[in-house]
Amino acid sequence: MTQSGGTRTTTRTQVGIVGGGPAGLMLAHLLDLAGISTVVVDDRTRHEIYTTVRAGILEHDTVRLLVDSGASRRVLTEGYEHEGIELAFGGGRHRIDFAELVGASAWLYPQTEVFADLADARERAGGDVRWGVRGTEVLDTTSDAPRIRFTAADGSAQEVVCDHLVGADGSRSQCRRSIPEEARVQTGKEYPFAWFGILCDAPPSAPELVYSHSPLGFALVSQRTESVQRMYFQCDPDEDASAYSDDRIWSEMAARLAPNGVEVVQGPITSKAVLRFRSFVHEPMRHGRMLLAGDAAHTVPPTGAKGLNLALADVRLLAELLERAVKKGDDDALEEYTGRALARVWKAQHFSYWMTTMLHALPGATPFDVRRQEAELASLVSSRAGRTFLAEGYTGWPERAAR
Amino acid sequence: MTQSGGTRTTTRTQVGIVGGGPAGLMLAHLLDLAGISTVVVDDRTRHEIYTTVRAGILEHDTVRLLVDSGASRRVLTEGYEHEGIELAFGGGRHRIDFAELVGASAWLYPQTEVFADLADARERAGGDVRWGVRGTEVLDTTSDAPRIRFTAADGSAQEVVCDHLVGADGSRSQCRRSIPEEARVQTGKEYPFAWFGILCDAPPSAPELVYSHSPLGFALVSQRTESVQRMYFQCDPDEDASAYSDDRIWSEMAARLAPNGVEVVQGPITSKAVLRFRSFVHEPMRHGRMLLAGDAAHTVPPTGAKGLNLALADVRLLAELLERAVKKGDDDALEEYTGRALARVWKAQHFSYWMTTMLHALPGATPFDVRRQEAELASLVSSRAGRTFLAEGYTGWPERAAR
Repeated sequence: MTQSGGTRTTTRTQVGIVGGGPAGLMLAHLLDLAGISTVVVDDRTRHEIYTTVRAGILEHDTVRLLVDSGASRRVLTEGYEHEGIELAFGGGRHRIDFAELVGASAWLYPQTEVFADLADARERAGGDVRWGVRGTEVLDTTSDAPRIRFTAADGSAQEVVCDHLVGADGSRSQCRRSIPEEARVQTGKEYPFAWFGILCDAPPSAPELVYSHSPLGFALVSQRTESVQRMYFQCDPDEDASAYSDDRIWSEMAARLAPNGVEVVQGPITSKAVLRFRSFVHEPMRHGRMLLAGDAAHTVPPTGAKGLNLALADVRLLAELLERAVKKGDDDALEEYTGRALARVWKAQHFSYWMTTMLHALPGATPFDVRRQEAELASLVSSRAGRTFLAEGYTGWPERAAR
Repeated sequence: MTQSGGTRTTTRTQVGIVGGGPAGLMLAHLLDLAGISTVVVDDRTRHEIYTTVRAGILEHDTVRLLVDSGASRRVLTEGYEHEGIELAFGGGRHRIDFAELVGASAWLYPQTEVFADLADARERAGGDVRWGVRGTEVLDTTSDAPRIRFTAADGSAQEVVCDHLVGADGSRSQCRRSIPEEARVQTGKEYPFAWFGILCDAPPSAPELVYSHSPLGFALVSQRTESVQRMYFQCDPDEDASAYSDDRIWSEMAARLAPNGVEVVQGPITSKAVLRFRSFVHEPMRHGRMLLAGDAAHTVPPTGAKGLNLALADVRLLAELLERAVKKGDDDALEEYTGRALARVWKAQHFSYWMTTMLHALPGATPFDVRRQEAELASLVSSRAGRTFLAEGYTGWPERAAR
């Protein structure tokens, strides 16, 4: 369906997708299974996306989506099932047993591998994905024929004309920015702290994630593989990661973790970065024939491990609604998108805010504030109901736990 | 055991209690049952205490304590058992069913009636209670014979010499103030809002308490009797209650409640007051032979209805420990007091803070903050575990719900 129009090549497709991260690729995958054509464009190369270190915790239903749709079988063989997490605070460690409490688990499987599996699936299916484009613009988004214009990696001028356009282009979303101010409401919150994230070559320090509260700040012991680990500690958002020696990083980690009885196995640090974060929600998630998904419409602090999971929940819903709209001519289907997606988004916003404010040292915190946080954590772990409520949120509100 | 010493009359007793509110009187009642002598002194008259409007929600175990100790049988006949509360937010009302969730209930029975029952019990038992004293001082609190000096209502100079002294003299506690700064840690939090509380002559607007969140602020529909109701709405701490006409009060209530589907039955308003509140904890709760109980050691915001319940939990524990110390000569018994009491106090501090910050309009709140609160409430009521966690806290962490 590609035609040359002057010097610009036009491609017609049913759904044009801006953004080739996990959300965009998963949507293309699901629509392909439904027999709906897509073109995906991204200004990054496949290699750039694959090599950007991202989160790595998948909700129960995210894994089910990956497996059931045939997008990834590797998640089950190369991922690690985590049947709980630990909360460390006040000098002790306390396990939240997801399997026992809600019959669900979370999976450790890096976002970059999710991406790799989805990119491979697109390749196998002969999907149209344009990596490394420049100058992407979205046009006529409220018309019947929205368009994506860009310069392809080979320098050619390109245009994709589609029936529906999806912006899955991340937190700095160009699609979102194209929506006039009067047609949207944006709300959010900045946090006065960030995460100092490292990758190191070492065996795991713990079998599951350990979320640690201390008066000095939050720390998170996470994992990647048997020989590579991911860890974080709370820092100032303006910190310069390169100014930290390995020794200093290990001593910052130990100061936050050792008092709670968490020992970290050290190893050469191969990546250091300061990760700033915020809470953000853009509404509505639909503008004419353009729909936003994932970080393009909402971002959450990383503490609840919700970002990727929310993005994939968006596109699972969006695939269902686009199928009704495209194949059954049900024009009302897309009307449902904002309301249904936002119900989960706001739950996740609260969950992420809660985990963040419960576990971090808040600037200006008084001794009362610190004791109150410890009392919150103590109340939570001492109550089966409290642990269950946290487990429901962490594993992603599985249907069976809803009531 | 009363002797005249010059112009000062000295009374010897085993436990001297400063403060004749519910905590002090309940302690005297329990110690009396254990055969331990007490003298209670209070600078207020019995009438003054009885006519000060206070809270009215009793935890499950508080009612059990009142009934089982023989202090109040009226609570069961004149109190109202509430098997739940309602949370109103986002345009709807949602019930938290305590009976179904945790097999416990809360009771509506005004603190002033608890006081009346306890004062009657002291009178029946011939207990030594000195009302309306002046110039109370506590002396030698770290010695083996602490003393309370005061001028009795009849103008006579009095001294009570005791083995143990208990400060149950409320949030402005003189006993607490007598402890040198180097011997205590105090932490707390001020809230930038208050409650406008009214009593009115009207039938109940709802069968149970309705806690209402709205962008305009918190409101609480409570009850007293079939013909007298207690209600509150969030206001500025510097508001002048007398400047509010009845009309203005009803319109403030309606603005917060009607959007959530809560209609209030109006009636003549007989009491108006602005109630400021804070969170506060003093540690340790023991100083030599002086022990603090209730508001003297800790105060909580009223949102969780915990103040009176915590005070009575303190004295239930204290009676047990004093009995061991006095009758069995177990000098270590009182060492346990601070640790055991504070475990509950900090749980209640968090619970009260949580209910307060979840339900009030926080000054400077952004639209994100309001939506996040609504999402928190929605997550909570949509999850059985969430509702159970709240019910456990509200009904007072009954033992059977602990794990």
